[in-house]
Amino acid sequence: MKPPGQEEFEASSAHENVPEGELDNGPGPGPSPDDPSDIDCRELGVPKDPLLFIQLNELLGWPQALEWRETGRWVLFEEKLEVGAGRWSAPHVPTLALPSLKKLRSLLAEGLVLLDCPAQSLLELVEQVTRVESLSPELRGQLQALLLQRPQHHIQTTGNRPCWGSPHSRKASHSEEALLKEQHQNPLRQKLPPGAEAGVVLVGELGFLAQPLGAFVQLQDPVVLGPLTEVPLPSRFFCLLLGPPTLGRGYHEMGRAAAVLLSDPRFQWSVRRASNLHDLLAALDAFLEEATVLPPGRWDPTTRIPPPKCISSQHKRLSSQLREAKGLSAPHPAPAEDRHRHGPRVSSPELQRTGRLFGGFVQDVRRKASWYPSDFSDAMHPQCFSAVLYIYLATVTNAITFGGLLGDATDGAQGVLESFLGTAVAGAAFCLMAGQPLTILSSTGPVLVFERLLFSFSRDHRLDYLPFRLWVGIWVATFCLVLVATEASVLVRYFTRFTEEGFCALISLIFIYDAVGKMLNVTRAYPIQRPGSPAYGCLCQYPGPGGNESQWTRTRPKDRDDILSMVRKVLSDFSSVLAILLGCGLDAFLGLATPKLMVPREFKPTLPGRGWLVSPFGANPWWLSVAAALPALLLSILIFMDQQITAVILNRAEYRLRKGAGFHLDLFCVAVLMLLTSVLGLPWYVSATVISLAHMDSLRRESRACAPGQPPSFLGIREQRLTGLVVFILTGVSVFLAPVLKFIPMPVLYGIFLYMGVAALSSIQFMNRVQLLLMPPKYQPDLLLLRHVPLSRVHLFTAIQLVCLGLLWIIKSTPAAIIFPLMLLGLVGVRKALEWVFSPQELLWLDEQMPEKERSIPEKGLEPEYSFTGSDREDSEPMYQPKAPEINISVN
Amino acid sequence: MKPPGQEEFEASSAHENVPEGELDNGPGPGPSPDDPSDIDCRELGVPKDPLLFIQLNELLGWPQALEWRETGRWVLFEEKLEVGAGRWSAPHVPTLALPSLKKLRSLLAEGLVLLDCPAQSLLELVEQVTRVESLSPELRGQLQALLLQRPQHHIQTTGNRPCWGSPHSRKASHSEEALLKEQHQNPLRQKLPPGAEAGVVLVGELGFLAQPLGAFVQLQDPVVLGPLTEVPLPSRFFCLLLGPPTLGRGYHEMGRAAAVLLSDPRFQWSVRRASNLHDLLAALDAFLEEATVLPPGRWDPTTRIPPPKCISSQHKRLSSQLREAKGLSAPHPAPAEDRHRHGPRVSSPELQRTGRLFGGFVQDVRRKASWYPSDFSDAMHPQCFSAVLYIYLATVTNAITFGGLLGDATDGAQGVLESFLGTAVAGAAFCLMAGQPLTILSSTGPVLVFERLLFSFSRDHRLDYLPFRLWVGIWVATFCLVLVATEASVLVRYFTRFTEEGFCALISLIFIYDAVGKMLNVTRAYPIQRPGSPAYGCLCQYPGPGGNESQWTRTRPKDRDDILSMVRKVLSDFSSVLAILLGCGLDAFLGLATPKLMVPREFKPTLPGRGWLVSPFGANPWWLSVAAALPALLLSILIFMDQQITAVILNRAEYRLRKGAGFHLDLFCVAVLMLLTSVLGLPWYVSATVISLAHMDSLRRESRACAPGQPPSFLGIREQRLTGLVVFILTGVSVFLAPVLKFIPMPVLYGIFLYMGVAALSSIQFMNRVQLLLMPPKYQPDLLLLRHVPLSRVHLFTAIQLVCLGLLWIIKSTPAAIIFPLMLLGLVGVRKALEWVFSPQELLWLDEQMPEKERSIPEKGLEPEYSFTGSDREDSEPMYQPKAPEINISVN
Repeated sequence: MKPPGQEEFEASSAHENVPEGELDNGPGPGPSPDDPSDIDCRELGVPKDPLLFIQLNELLGWPQALEWRETGRWVLFEEKLEVGAGRWSAPHVPTLALPSLKKLRSLLAEGLVLLDCPAQSLLELVEQVTRVESLSPELRGQLQALLLQRPQHHIQTTGNRPCWGSPHSRKASHSEEALLKEQHQNPLRQKLPPGAEAGVVLVGELGFLAQPLGAFVQLQDPVVLGPLTEVPLPSRFFCLLLGPPTLGRGYHEMGRAAAVLLSDPRFQWSVRRASNLHDLLAALDAFLEEATVLPPGRWDPTTRIPPPKCISSQHKRLSSQLREAKGLSAPHPAPAEDRHRHGPRVSSPELQRTGRLFGGFVQDVRRKASWYPSDFSDAMHPQCFSAVLYIYLATVTNAITFGGLLGDATDGAQGVLESFLGTAVAGAAFCLMAGQPLTILSSTGPVLVFERLLFSFSRDHRLDYLPFRLWVGIWVATFCLVLVATEASVLVRYFTRFTEEGFCALISLIFIYDAVGKMLNVTRAYPIQRPGSPAYGCLCQYPGPGGNESQWTRTRPKDRDDILSMVRKVLSDFSSVLAILLGCGLDAFLGLATPKLMVPREFKPTLPGRGWLVSPFGANPWWLSVAAALPALLLSILIFMDQQITAVILNRAEYRLRKGAGFHLDLFCVAVLMLLTSVLGLPWYVSATVISLAHMDSLRRESRACAPGQPPSFLGIREQRLTGLVVFILTGVSVFLAPVLKFIPMPVLYGIFLYMGVAALSSIQFMNRVQLLLMPPKYQPDLLLLRHVPLSRVHLFTAIQLVCLGLLWIIKSTPAAIIFPLMLLGLVGVRKALEWVFSPQELLWLDEQMPEKERSIPEKGLEPEYSFTGSDREDSEPMYQPKAPEINISVN
Repeated sequence: MKPPGQEEFEASSAHENVPEGELDNGPGPGPSPDDPSDIDCRELGVPKDPLLFIQLNELLGWPQALEWRETGRWVLFEEKLEVGAGRWSAPHVPTLALPSLKKLRSLLAEGLVLLDCPAQSLLELVEQVTRVESLSPELRGQLQALLLQRPQHHIQTTGNRPCWGSPHSRKASHSEEALLKEQHQNPLRQKLPPGAEAGVVLVGELGFLAQPLGAFVQLQDPVVLGPLTEVPLPSRFFCLLLGPPTLGRGYHEMGRAAAVLLSDPRFQWSVRRASNLHDLLAALDAFLEEATVLPPGRWDPTTRIPPPKCISSQHKRLSSQLREAKGLSAPHPAPAEDRHRHGPRVSSPELQRTGRLFGGFVQDVRRKASWYPSDFSDAMHPQCFSAVLYIYLATVTNAITFGGLLGDATDGAQGVLESFLGTAVAGAAFCLMAGQPLTILSSTGPVLVFERLLFSFSRDHRLDYLPFRLWVGIWVATFCLVLVATEASVLVRYFTRFTEEGFCALISLIFIYDAVGKMLNVTRAYPIQRPGSPAYGCLCQYPGPGGNESQWTRTRPKDRDDILSMVRKVLSDFSSVLAILLGCGLDAFLGLATPKLMVPREFKPTLPGRGWLVSPFGANPWWLSVAAALPALLLSILIFMDQQITAVILNRAEYRLRKGAGFHLDLFCVAVLMLLTSVLGLPWYVSATVISLAHMDSLRRESRACAPGQPPSFLGIREQRLTGLVVFILTGVSVFLAPVLKFIPMPVLYGIFLYMGVAALSSIQFMNRVQLLLMPPKYQPDLLLLRHVPLSRVHLFTAIQLVCLGLLWIIKSTPAAIIFPLMLLGLVGVRKALEWVFSPQELLWLDEQMPEKERSIPEKGLEPEYSFTGSDREDSEPMYQPKAPEINISVN
């Protein structure tokens, strides 16, 4: 069981993934195949060690007023007591001086080492520890009394007022119970998972000692050692380092060294299993073997290094040790999931061809059915409420904007009402039935362009548009069903990052272009007054709420403060909604004459005189129903590409979805909805990349930081069907909400568009590489990509992608838009052709593997990383690849 | 002599201060009392060691095609060759694995160590190195041939095209001379100072060796070892680490360890003076003693640590070693100049009372006279041209704005023309005569308020204003002369950071308030159109050029790219001017109806009918000339405070002024100008904090980064009289430049004001502390201040300062403004009273010492730092202060 303190308290957290895995208190009870951090320990049958809280108590005030005071503590990182400031420092990576480690080693080698000590209380422990020959009985008594003395703890209360849990400052009036209560109320305790143990290091100068006294105790059973630690945890380790006052700060530094050693999981692991002094010293030496040395002149040791964003290789270190301990030989390569990148889609079970008609579809239905109840129960979280508001506004804006566009382009054959109705019906149906219910359907982008072209064609040839369109829809649905039957969706394996990012960039740019265009339209309607031009009613340029909103939303804190975390977290969950409300409020307060959200007031088709059902032929000749197959073919390609690229993007491994994808099922739903919307004369719908990404992003789950300094980790997405469903029900209801919605200024909604476009655009690697194009090499970030691929090759790859993007944009904007679907397919071809230009290694770093090639090299070892945290010492990478023809892989 | 490559190439650089001092090639020839980094080496009579460039050549391609390739290089930081990417990595702090250092040590201990080797060429060196018993003559020959083989260098050309200086890739057609030429054209060579030496480390696996071969050579005289290094420097060190192919990457890591060792100045220093193996190993052990250890689990060793902003304690390490070597005992405390903080003003020679009448004044004149010629020759730099334009525009805006204000307030007794004329005359005179010629005089702020009060008084009592004002001026000049005669300026020692920052914040806020107020006035004149309000000519809100400008100017790059450094540097020098031109251009392009800069067209007093000389009595009774002494007393206090606080701020130690201050002389000049302006009926002038700070900032000198990764360091200010003089001459001429100046929109000029205000405000510690007030402790930066003073005390101090600031602001804005001078004086009293509230230690961290107390504690040891770079291991600070009454200082 995962401890509840470790992540958000919710029922469905058993399968969640804590990257380091070192905070776990044993293997999870249920199957968690997607949790890589547990695999090694489980497969080796070794239970995980409890988390260790380490405290350094220092003996101060010699010779006048001896007292113990806590001066440092460690869980993952070090926190120092700032005596002057009376507070704990920020958690930081501990740095040690090498001599202090060496001194510690020699002190332990000569000192007392008790492993599996059976002591049951502090008193027993102290008696055992002081049973040293060099001490006279009198000194021993003195020492025992000293060790039993209660230490001063600096307990950080929620305010800034420090609270010294010490009898010195509180005198006798402060009873034992009160102290114990204080110990229990320590906020740190709430953060530590149940089952955590403590380690105590006691150091100091003691004048009556003739020679240093070192003792290291590992208790057989962890025991709460009274008030020794600031949190009432059972202690497992006890380390005593005392000596005559000759070393100065030496004991403090030795104590820190001992504490840092204990905070190292590998050392901890070894010492828990050590049977004698030799094992203990070997563990210390192993620590030194792995330690990183910073040269003295180039690094100021007083600089506190903030905790890294991502601690890597901890798990691998441990598992390799486990293997060593078990006598297993070569460690297998690091698990790929550590790496937050595109998963090995090729091996995804959803994309294995079954070879039977509708085989993939049936499998999808089966797989998703088992999750169906949880798709509703998982939505019980306030975050979902915020997501609904945010996505609802985006969807309504979308419906209004593109409904209006489509209405203009089709002379009212489609209108805002159709747009609302279609969005509501199609979206809700999709959310209820689809394989990936987080998908938001919309009529934006390429499909819209296609519909417009279809209308021009039928107008130019004097055809009855809606019946013609009905037949196109029927054909598209048929073709799509054929694609479902033949399991064509497994071809998405050919959509590499190149294709995905090209498409995603295009759609994002369309969003941004539209948002900015709309905004400029507003400005144009109320232009900036120039001297000399006729003066008339003026609305000043209004970048306010929209731009504001996006900025506001993007700066929402990722780290959540522990104290205000109920407040802050809610605020950040609702940041986008707050920004929208702020925009609306500002608009109302300033009384600006902005265009407002207007929804139709009457529930009837926009085209006068038509009913809700489209007649199958109308004024068209019968053969047109057959000829419609030709445009339908192109549209099918478009729908397939649009739908599946979006699905691939939404089902990326980095989102850690645990309910799996449903490529076949999704396409089936789209086909059915195609038919439905064609019959009713509503716009056509397909998965919308940008809004769906925004939807997923608004449903991110993050762990609460557990140990001080540990960054919150991404746990996954709240996968459920309810948010989408409610969004589309609300969209449907919106037709009747005109009096409320008319207070929302359109620029605020354009701001949402702009934000979603920018957010989607900035999430892709392609944009990083575009930035590299403009950056002098000196200022480029230290991307692993750049360590392995020559800059000119990176630029070439980016340039090719830019050219493709430009071509797509041009084609989309010209009458040639009809071949746009083919061009999308062409992207896959371009990617394939790139294999002649780039070496496989370069493509691995820049893109990913295409599936058809026989994998002669183990795939895991091939995967590049796109982050700072390499899985092994980069410096030990081979620097040289002989110019031989075979592929040499340089990872690890 | 400092090498020309190290800093900007200019004649006056001999005295400049390179913080680390480790790049120097010997003590400077002239006196440089303000250069702390030279003191220790000089006082110990030891010449500085040359800079060392270290290169790692690795033997690769065993067994097929052996070749040497350069894979790493070091000056201060490490640069790795990214083989895949074909480029040098960004410079970073090297990290080593401890085992590689240990293996290196044992290899050196068993290997060949030649100190003071007399070899004169690579051939001789190779012969000496291979004279090992374990090698057969045949193998020796093979090894020699291998060592003489030319290595491949990756020479980074200015473009991105890598250039391999190797015979393998260029074949025979590439002659020796061409290679040598390439070596000489290496851009790295231009960066290294003349006199730099090289160290070469050669490592690799060699199949025919039965056992490892280690050799360390220190050449008696440095020799250019042919093509061994990528830059044709004479090599001083040569390290060879070869062995059988058993260790894998071990040799590479050992080679890196050797290179990092050699790049450590202290190791270098020891090895240059080593006489035997024992010394060498002792130097290695000393390195290890000082090394910082990062625990393995908490830090990913592949993370490249960027070079720190400021490398501390290097110098101290070296000088302590020098002392040890010389047998001197205790090292004295770290030089305070390392610390970029307020210098110990108390001990400044300018502020020592001589005890003679006008004694300080005479000393000031004497001191400044010696710099007078250089005050003009030092201005020969393009940066000064930019500074003139920037400050000229600020001064003109000031003259226009406050001239207009004063004109309104005094019913035209003062006007824009008087403002221009006065600014020109007073400013130019001050620049020619003053002690601190970087000061820009202006009539802003408190003095302006006083003048306005004086006018209302004389109007209310039907006095003849200008004659009354003349007498006030005469009295003020008299009082000020008395203050000069009595050396009252030494009292500025009581102006601590508390007073300075309070005053500076007030003045900055006035600037910001005025700029924003002016801007809002523009908006008000052309308001935002509301629906329903009468429509008329509209200018949209215009935050553009001004706000733009400030942002633009602030983001100018501090790091200068080496390649484009003639381009980039000039651009950054002229950034503010460019921003102004951009603003003007945008205004002209958009044809906005902004108010433009208007200067008077006629050269005559604004008040009709008066001549340029003010009559001494006019219509006033004679006794008024005596009564004028009373307001003059208040004004004298104000002038003294205003002038001297500004002077204190401008003469801060952190600006590294080398020509010294002239507090007495400055006050004398102000007094004389007071008289002059009173006689001519021009506004009164006093030093302007904000514009003067902007002036200084626009004259900053920074060193060019020398070693890769080394941040440019601040060298000082171009101290000269010419920029100020030209600014004021231009201001005078401006009266006749109306046709040109009318193209400058006022909002652009308000932008300059805003920028100057914000820049001045953000430069003070007070603002950092105000930010702390609003920040939850978790997100607070790791300021040293916060490590030593409880947060509540910091907040209390900040709150007191805020209250003082608020009081000053209120008084300034109400009729009580007449007592404003006394309130300024009150600031000093408040600071004194704070000694009852805060402990001396707290005040040391929050403010600084006041002078009157007898210094019972050595002052140097007391100084707190306000930066990350502590001067010693923070961890070895005593953690505990017994609660004894005496002051215990916890620094170092």
